[in-house]
Amino acid sequence: MKVNKISIEEEIIRLLKKESHSFLSGQALSKTFGLSRTAIWKYINSIKEMGYSIAASPAKGYRLNLQNLPFTVLEISSNLKTAFIGKNISFYKEIDSTNEAAREFASKGAAEGFAVVADFQKKGKGRLGRRWESPAGVNIYTSIVLRPNIMPVFAPQLTLVAAVAVAETIARFLNNGSGYKPEPAVKWPNDILINSKKVAGILTEMNSEMDRINFVVIGVGVNVNMTKEMFSEGLEFIATSLKQEGGKEISRTAFIQLLYLNMEKWYAQYLKGGFEPVRKAWTSFFHMAGKTVKVQQTGKIMQGIAVGIDNDGALLLREKSGNIARILSGDVEM
Amino acid sequence: MKVNKISIEEEIIRLLKKESHSFLSGQALSKTFGLSRTAIWKYINSIKEMGYSIAASPAKGYRLNLQNLPFTVLEISSNLKTAFIGKNISFYKEIDSTNEAAREFASKGAAEGFAVVADFQKKGKGRLGRRWESPAGVNIYTSIVLRPNIMPVFAPQLTLVAAVAVAETIARFLNNGSGYKPEPAVKWPNDILINSKKVAGILTEMNSEMDRINFVVIGVGVNVNMTKEMFSEGLEFIATSLKQEGGKEISRTAFIQLLYLNMEKWYAQYLKGGFEPVRKAWTSFFHMAGKTVKVQQTGKIMQGIAVGIDNDGALLLREKSGNIARILSGDVEM
Repeated sequence: MKVNKISIEEEIIRLLKKESHSFLSGQALSKTFGLSRTAIWKYINSIKEMGYSIAASPAKGYRLNLQNLPFTVLEISSNLKTAFIGKNISFYKEIDSTNEAAREFASKGAAEGFAVVADFQKKGKGRLGRRWESPAGVNIYTSIVLRPNIMPVFAPQLTLVAAVAVAETIARFLNNGSGYKPEPAVKWPNDILINSKKVAGILTEMNSEMDRINFVVIGVGVNVNMTKEMFSEGLEFIATSLKQEGGKEISRTAFIQLLYLNMEKWYAQYLKGGFEPVRKAWTSFFHMAGKTVKVQQTGKIMQGIAVGIDNDGALLLREKSGNIARILSGDVEM
Repeated sequence: MKVNKISIEEEIIRLLKKESHSFLSGQALSKTFGLSRTAIWKYINSIKEMGYSIAASPAKGYRLNLQNLPFTVLEISSNLKTAFIGKNISFYKEIDSTNEAAREFASKGAAEGFAVVADFQKKGKGRLGRRWESPAGVNIYTSIVLRPNIMPVFAPQLTLVAAVAVAETIARFLNNGSGYKPEPAVKWPNDILINSKKVAGILTEMNSEMDRINFVVIGVGVNVNMTKEMFSEGLEFIATSLKQEGGKEISRTAFIQLLYLNMEKWYAQYLKGGFEPVRKAWTSFFHMAGKTVKVQQTGKIMQGIAVGIDNDGALLLREKSGNIARILSGDVEM
């Protein structure tokens, strides 16, 4: 398990943040840390390599640009308001898949709330083995280990718990100041849409015995600042990003902090109060209710009016015959 | 993945088996394989080290004792009548846990039917993290990888599919010739008993997405030739072995071959015909039906009359009130 040890770099970053209204002299830093000015200069360079933007003046010293902080464990951890989700993070500049890494950590005993975060996924995974577009530097790819004391049969509800947390987080960041505020919508079972285009997805994987969950990994991918050009050809018609819809660049650090907090809130609510409050919140984001949809399942296509979800989290579809079908799996299309 | 490559040792064993009615001369073996008699002698020694009992006479040659064949991949594979279960076996003289190994193989892509077999488990696992007594040289510990195209919610039924296969296999070997034939009974959800004592257990583990099973590992432990003295103190009162109950030593090779065949038969039946035929077969082994049982669940104890299992594989319990409770998890006691 990765331990986030506090380094001199981190201490310097903290000081620079506190003093970011003006320059902090090399001399003051030397004195604080009992290091030579050359040593301080080396640490500053190493901090710059971490992605921090620091103005340096031989006369005045160093000044951190707070407007342009990098996406790092240090930034995510500072001011993170959660009790357990994201308190331990394994961060990767690049990785095959955060879900795969989280599963490995979980198999080796990672505690509830342990999270994997990556800047870039080489083999980002969507549902049913599909690809999840995962360019570097713009989006959020994170996988969280949970160890709920529930029966495996209830695990699919956790995807909906996560969907509510993701939709709520997205809603908080979608305000472009023009008075127009696009709204996130959930698509059963695991996507979040804005204006009918996919902006986030959830991939829940479970390791269980017959009557006990060993662990669940909840993977969340959010297209945050991705531009149209970054999508593979054709995907731009069915996928979008928060920046494209809201018009503003969004801090990935601020987003993931709120995401973890909302995840923790809804997960606790679910464990304590059961699925009903989650079902209600999910339904408030379910804009497909009352609309005619097609459900593709292996070997058959069903059509009907989307009614909502039941107590198990299954999609309810009113067929022409009036019969209500419970959908446990499949792809839903408008 | 381990590949079972055919070695000169295996070829010699085949010949010795064919000629086991009499001695096979070193000279004949020399000629067949184009090897010196010293080379043949070395191979014979290596075969003896594999556990084969071979009589050697300078004048007459070599003769294999067919009554005392070792428990090896070679023996299991020869005359194995299955189409896929056990066609690829990874065999260990000792291992931590066959389920753990099978899960690792499955994660790396092991095909359906791949099996792990061990002579001795250092950390044999029972249900809910409990220990499974696993001494060397006497029992069967095997774990099979399955990749059923069913929804994860149905996976618990596979434990019952396996239970039927194990019970059927045990029934075939329980005949001590005295006219008295003890019968195996299933105990919900995952044990097989003889005369109310545990003789076999099943540990099913699953790796799944919300609407897809990646793989299932079915672990089976059978106390075959274990003697009373081999049990940890006290366990001998609640556990037994086929030899203790039937009075006869049983070939582990013959047992595992029939076990794999029955597993394959019932698994195919389940995939094709659904759970109902399995439920019926399971019920025929369910001797607790109609008896009063106690079910221990986390935080509560229920009491009632065991009725049977329903279409999902849940245990049905008629409570005092007349209400039928569906039990999804817990420990059942008479």
